[in-house]
Amino acid sequence: MICDNLSVNELGHLCFAGHDTGELAAKYGTPLYLMDEDKIREKCRKYVNAMRSYLPKGSMALYASKAASFKKMYEIILEEGMGADVVSSGEIYTAMKAHFPLSNAFFHSNNKTDWDIDFAIKNGIGYFVVDSREELIVINDTAKKYGISQKVLLRLTPGIDTHTYEAVNTGKVDSKFGTAIETGQAKDITSLALSLENITLSGFHCHIGSQVFDSDTFCRGARIMLEFISHIKNSFGYYPSLLDLGGGYGVRYTENDPEGLDIEKEIRGLSECLYSICQELSITCPPILMEPGRSIVGDAGMTLYTVGSLKCIPGYKNYVSVDGGMTDNPRYALYGSAYTIYNALKMNCERTLVADVAGRCCESGDIIGIDISLPECKRGDIIAVLTTGAYNYSMASNYNRLTRPPVVMLRNDGTSYIAVKRETLEYLTENDI
Amino acid sequence: MICDNLSVNELGHLCFAGHDTGELAAKYGTPLYLMDEDKIREKCRKYVNAMRSYLPKGSMALYASKAASFKKMYEIILEEGMGADVVSSGEIYTAMKAHFPLSNAFFHSNNKTDWDIDFAIKNGIGYFVVDSREELIVINDTAKKYGISQKVLLRLTPGIDTHTYEAVNTGKVDSKFGTAIETGQAKDITSLALSLENITLSGFHCHIGSQVFDSDTFCRGARIMLEFISHIKNSFGYYPSLLDLGGGYGVRYTENDPEGLDIEKEIRGLSECLYSICQELSITCPPILMEPGRSIVGDAGMTLYTVGSLKCIPGYKNYVSVDGGMTDNPRYALYGSAYTIYNALKMNCERTLVADVAGRCCESGDIIGIDISLPECKRGDIIAVLTTGAYNYSMASNYNRLTRPPVVMLRNDGTSYIAVKRETLEYLTENDI
Repeated sequence: MICDNLSVNELGHLCFAGHDTGELAAKYGTPLYLMDEDKIREKCRKYVNAMRSYLPKGSMALYASKAASFKKMYEIILEEGMGADVVSSGEIYTAMKAHFPLSNAFFHSNNKTDWDIDFAIKNGIGYFVVDSREELIVINDTAKKYGISQKVLLRLTPGIDTHTYEAVNTGKVDSKFGTAIETGQAKDITSLALSLENITLSGFHCHIGSQVFDSDTFCRGARIMLEFISHIKNSFGYYPSLLDLGGGYGVRYTENDPEGLDIEKEIRGLSECLYSICQELSITCPPILMEPGRSIVGDAGMTLYTVGSLKCIPGYKNYVSVDGGMTDNPRYALYGSAYTIYNALKMNCERTLVADVAGRCCESGDIIGIDISLPECKRGDIIAVLTTGAYNYSMASNYNRLTRPPVVMLRNDGTSYIAVKRETLEYLTENDI
Repeated sequence: MICDNLSVNELGHLCFAGHDTGELAAKYGTPLYLMDEDKIREKCRKYVNAMRSYLPKGSMALYASKAASFKKMYEIILEEGMGADVVSSGEIYTAMKAHFPLSNAFFHSNNKTDWDIDFAIKNGIGYFVVDSREELIVINDTAKKYGISQKVLLRLTPGIDTHTYEAVNTGKVDSKFGTAIETGQAKDITSLALSLENITLSGFHCHIGSQVFDSDTFCRGARIMLEFISHIKNSFGYYPSLLDLGGGYGVRYTENDPEGLDIEKEIRGLSECLYSICQELSITCPPILMEPGRSIVGDAGMTLYTVGSLKCIPGYKNYVSVDGGMTDNPRYALYGSAYTIYNALKMNCERTLVADVAGRCCESGDIIGIDISLPECKRGDIIAVLTTGAYNYSMASNYNRLTRPPVVMLRNDGTSYIAVKRETLEYLTENDI
């Protein structure tokens, strides 16, 4: 199976983190987000330990919380010794509710409003990852108002074209994010940051992309960043105390994704490459930050649905409709993303059906997967969609005025608990006047 | 301009429904959804009056509330004499909170759960629009439990391929929705419905697609449906009391969309076509239902944003980033939908800039529009995106843990009021444990 937290029990039921999915569906209802807490912690530790072992002192893994942001996640990453990458006042507020120390939080986003900047500084955000000149100036002014010097990283675009899909391909020069090195604008904003009285420039950030399976991509990005750092050192006599390489490694959505990724080995490889580049450039390797999000929670997640109907249209297609869809998982609608999908309680049955798994929204594009091999499905069957831990709960909507599913955490001691409650109809209409 | 509720005042500010957008942005903050209440009512009346004038007695316009579902909308359509097309228990609950009589509500969706069916029947839903055999049987059983006979329409797929984009192209045979006429399955489900003790078959439904600009498409769909009805009459001696043709007419997103659509004229044309087909088939034309959603609210809506930065990447591209994006309007990310976009307070300035208008989410695909002609933009400028009344608020998410904007209703007497409150940080985390 695509991840080691999956198994099939003697009833032929799919188990996740050792829990029978049929029992979970019966206990918590569907649609249902499941999260394997032990898998999340295992992934956190892989980054934390490997970065501690192989990268310069002061290196840190930040959880990119946009992948799945709710209170419990910040509690877990705090316990596991990770920092947080946050992208909005909403994520900052959620982290605060979890008593996460904001001094270890890095505030990203290509557009932080004046209100966001004030809110973050007032509450003691550790670092801003600055996206533009305009923002840098507002941060300086706001820091002045509060009588502090605000630590910032500058987000730069190294111009790497990764092989991931467009929407998460964020490191190329033509990007809404950051400031391009190639055009000389990165040097200009560095000069500006160094000149501002209430700004402490802590270093630089780049984000090569998401769902990367090799360290080569990170190395190519790092080379461009380190060459830039070397150039800046020569020009301004400034040397950063942090280099944030963004992102994390990929997770497996289907059997087509590479297997056997070893995070420790990749980080060791990255470290060798970093030290080699630094030696070549005669600079010290600065402490490194990485920002795994999907990598931490992706395969720690699963979604369970109940089948509503099987529609066989002779000569055309078959559709299995489920009680969720693009509202809880918009990734097929947005990117055509592929998932591994099972009829969870018929794991040992022969797969005689090929069907599209369709969501319940009044929209043809509300599809979870096309041409899925399944055993015969009938109303009441439980469908499991794997690897939904990242960008499912966090991207969920109330389209069709559907309530969002709860997030239930699973522990490998056989216990489970609700981390995010199922939305109620009352909650849906709470803001309607 | 693309709609008659737009104008420019002496300050060079864009006005919507006679309101200065600069004043609205200052009063309510951004991002901000605006809805022109008078335009909504005008559109409702066009359907109600034309359908009353030209279509058989008992014909009715249903507001497809998935386009924009909140309490105030149900109050408006009730006052304007429309029925409601609802697609979930959430929409039913919202309609109930607005004291909308559920006897005039039609419950759609390709997947209604047992809970939904029970909730709807218990609360007196007028009609189910039945999507599958499985659902029909559960409705029958539930109606039996409550000791009633439940009125239903059967959703059929006539096999019309409209010229709209895939995601809203819902009338073709290969569809997750409804039951195909071509395969004989529609006749079978009709026979089943007629045989069930607690089901009253009121008629048939089809949905040809959305954003249709001519009655020809409706006529082609209607012909297939009426031929089917004639065949069913001959086979089973059953004649429907309602024929629901689904959908409504298009709205203009940009100058490229056809102008001068006259809803009254189109409905008159549709009626001529319907009577002619019925005469040909020697049947009486049943009362007709239509389901305008986008058509009612599309150009009654506008979104205002504040600019965070202008990023000019020499040799590549320009980006204007705003304080909202795919969270409040995912239609570019989902379908590449085009919008008309203005720098709202610089309407008389020369447009010297071509830029992508980018949202604030940490995702490259978070774009509102590409290659938009604008005057020079700077942080603090107000950007207006037109025709956002449909499928913007209703599809909005909290991705990046952003709060959803409020919906402010505008009246042409110069007053405005909040229909949906801006989400707070507390609301965002209300379900986190």
